[in-house]
Amino acid sequence: MDRMMLLFEIIGTVAFSISGAFVAIRKGMDLLGVLVMGLVTAVGGGVIRDVVTGSVPPKAFTDPGYAGLAIAVAAIAFVIEWKIKKDKSATSQTFEKILFLSDSVGLATFTVFGIRCVQEQLGNDNYALLIFVGVITGVGGGVLRDLFANTVPSIFRKHVYATASIVGACSFLLAEKFVGQNTAAVLSLIITVLIRVLAGHFQWNLPCIEWEKNKE
Amino acid sequence: MDRMMLLFEIIGTVAFSISGAFVAIRKGMDLLGVLVMGLVTAVGGGVIRDVVTGSVPPKAFTDPGYAGLAIAVAAIAFVIEWKIKKDKSATSQTFEKILFLSDSVGLATFTVFGIRCVQEQLGNDNYALLIFVGVITGVGGGVLRDLFANTVPSIFRKHVYATASIVGACSFLLAEKFVGQNTAAVLSLIITVLIRVLAGHFQWNLPCIEWEKNKE
Amino acid sequence: MDRMMLLFEIIGTVAFSISGAFVAIRKGMDLLGVLVMGLVTAVGGGVIRDVVTGSVPPKAFTDPGYAGLAIAVAAIAFVIEWKIKKDKSATSQTFEKILFLSDSVGLATFTVFGIRCVQEQLGNDNYALLIFVGVITGVGGGVLRDLFANTVPSIFRKHVYATASIVGACSFLLAEKFVGQNTAAVLSLIITVLIRVLAGHFQWNLPCIEWEKNKE
Repeated sequence: MDRMMLLFEIIGTVAFSISGAFVAIRKGMDLLGVLVMGLVTAVGGGVIRDVVTGSVPPKAFTDPGYAGLAIAVAAIAFVIEWKIKKDKSATSQTFEKILFLSDSVGLATFTVFGIRCVQEQLGNDNYALLIFVGVITGVGGGVLRDLFANTVPSIFRKHVYATASIVGACSFLLAEKFVGQNTAAVLSLIITVLIRVLAGHFQWNLPCIEWEKNKE
Repeated sequence: MDRMMLLFEIIGTVAFSISGAFVAIRKGMDLLGVLVMGLVTAVGGGVIRDVVTGSVPPKAFTDPGYAGLAIAVAAIAFVIEWKIKKDKSATSQTFEKILFLSDSVGLATFTVFGIRCVQEQLGNDNYALLIFVGVITGVGGGVLRDLFANTVPSIFRKHVYATASIVGACSFLLAEKFVGQNTAAVLSLIITVLIRVLAGHFQWNLPCIEWEKNKE
Repeated sequence: MDRMMLLFEIIGTVAFSISGAFVAIRKGMDLLGVLVMGLVTAVGGGVIRDVVTGSVPPKAFTDPGYAGLAIAVAAIAFVIEWKIKKDKSATSQTFEKILFLSDSVGLATFTVFGIRCVQEQLGNDNYALLIFVGVITGVGGGVLRDLFANTVPSIFRKHVYATASIVGACSFLLAEKFVGQNTAAVLSLIITVLIRVLAGHFQWNLPCIEWEKNKE
């Protein structure tokens, strides 16, 4: 499980850092802003998880490998965007697809990883706590990213975003009873990403009440 | 006092969840966004309180009754708004009144409840700490709600909003010396809500410097 | 060192409170909003530092001297702005200069102070942790200020803002090996403020990718 979780953490860190860097670039932030947004998106969920579970200082601060990875990935994303920015139409399409997929993979891996951390630290008894902390670890980085980008967090609007994290958390907890943690983690990852991809493709949306804009 | 505090917590949770759900609906969020905003508004102040006082994992995570209640209330608010949305003018007026009153009751109850938690956990000596944590518990959920809704927190603008919480906190601490905690809690609740209602009715406002908008 | 650090804390508190109060005034917040924004900007970085290092309740809550100072300074800033608001052109220029310098001094002092706190509390071994927490203490209050003012945090956009904090943190850690903490703190303070002033004067900017606004 240890190597599994290491790989998961790396995938999630890279994916979320790209997602944060691209949002920062789109917002016109400078190089440092892009690096910080990559960092915050990648480690933010884990930092919130560590703070609310009392595991301080957060692992992201004491063990700076993931922070360094996130910063390096954001720097690479900045350079690539810098190179290809002349071909706007290609950039834009590529951008949307990369953002979407990386976001989904990060969401899925961090949800499972958050649950695993709490299981190791506080035990396996309280399912509500496990699901809460798993979902917070999954969506926390993205929520911080969107707050810093001064937009309503996409978790509250996008096609079944947090829903995918919640389903992923539940399916991991259910599956590990029967097939062990490794397989359960892979299953949960596939389910979460699949929900996101299908929701994006078929434009699944949760119900929403149209509110007149001019009442604001 | 225990049953008293239980009742208080339930009133505050319901009131703040409605407030969060309505802001989410007004922002055009989907069903999950409405549920999460109801949850965050209802338990957010308590989570911040538990994190800054080192009582982790926060009670809202380990004891999911209040979280479940907040989600259920937000769901009901969503359904009701869904039903009556055709009659916009009625909705809008009802909305404003419910939002205002529920917000005031939540503010009042959570302020007192936050102070009570710190008294039990860290003692009764440090009045500055008690007032800080009480006010944070009272206004924290609403501040998170407004941050997630991408607006300047209403605590910084609305008619004497946080002022009511501060006065409520001080009057609770003063009154419990003389009349006991139960009566003090009720007194503080009445005072806080009364300040809000009077301020809303008479349009009380704290002084404010007009700044030219076009300088932004 | 103790008196040194006390002086630093007072300078930083006053400077950041002014910065928070002026942003609040510019956003048209009322008196309480201005006081809270002064408070949050002044103690926010320290509160985040204490929460992520597990030093709870945060010192700003248990030892309300700095909170009181921040509130008093914000009140004075409000009164001064209130008096001179009639002469808009003078106000605006004064405002920008005071905001810039106070922000820089606060950034520099709080960065060093954050590192000192972690050194005392968690030891001097983990440089990544020291720099992280130092920078968070330095920029945290300003980030909260900007989140509450509903703008993209200026750390992500302004001329080498967080960069100055990072350089200041590194130069303090480097210099204290050779010249002791007091001199290192003064050196770091001068370097940080100098970077900010030079960057502001010569309009230094980190690279930034122009993104078409109409794609939002």
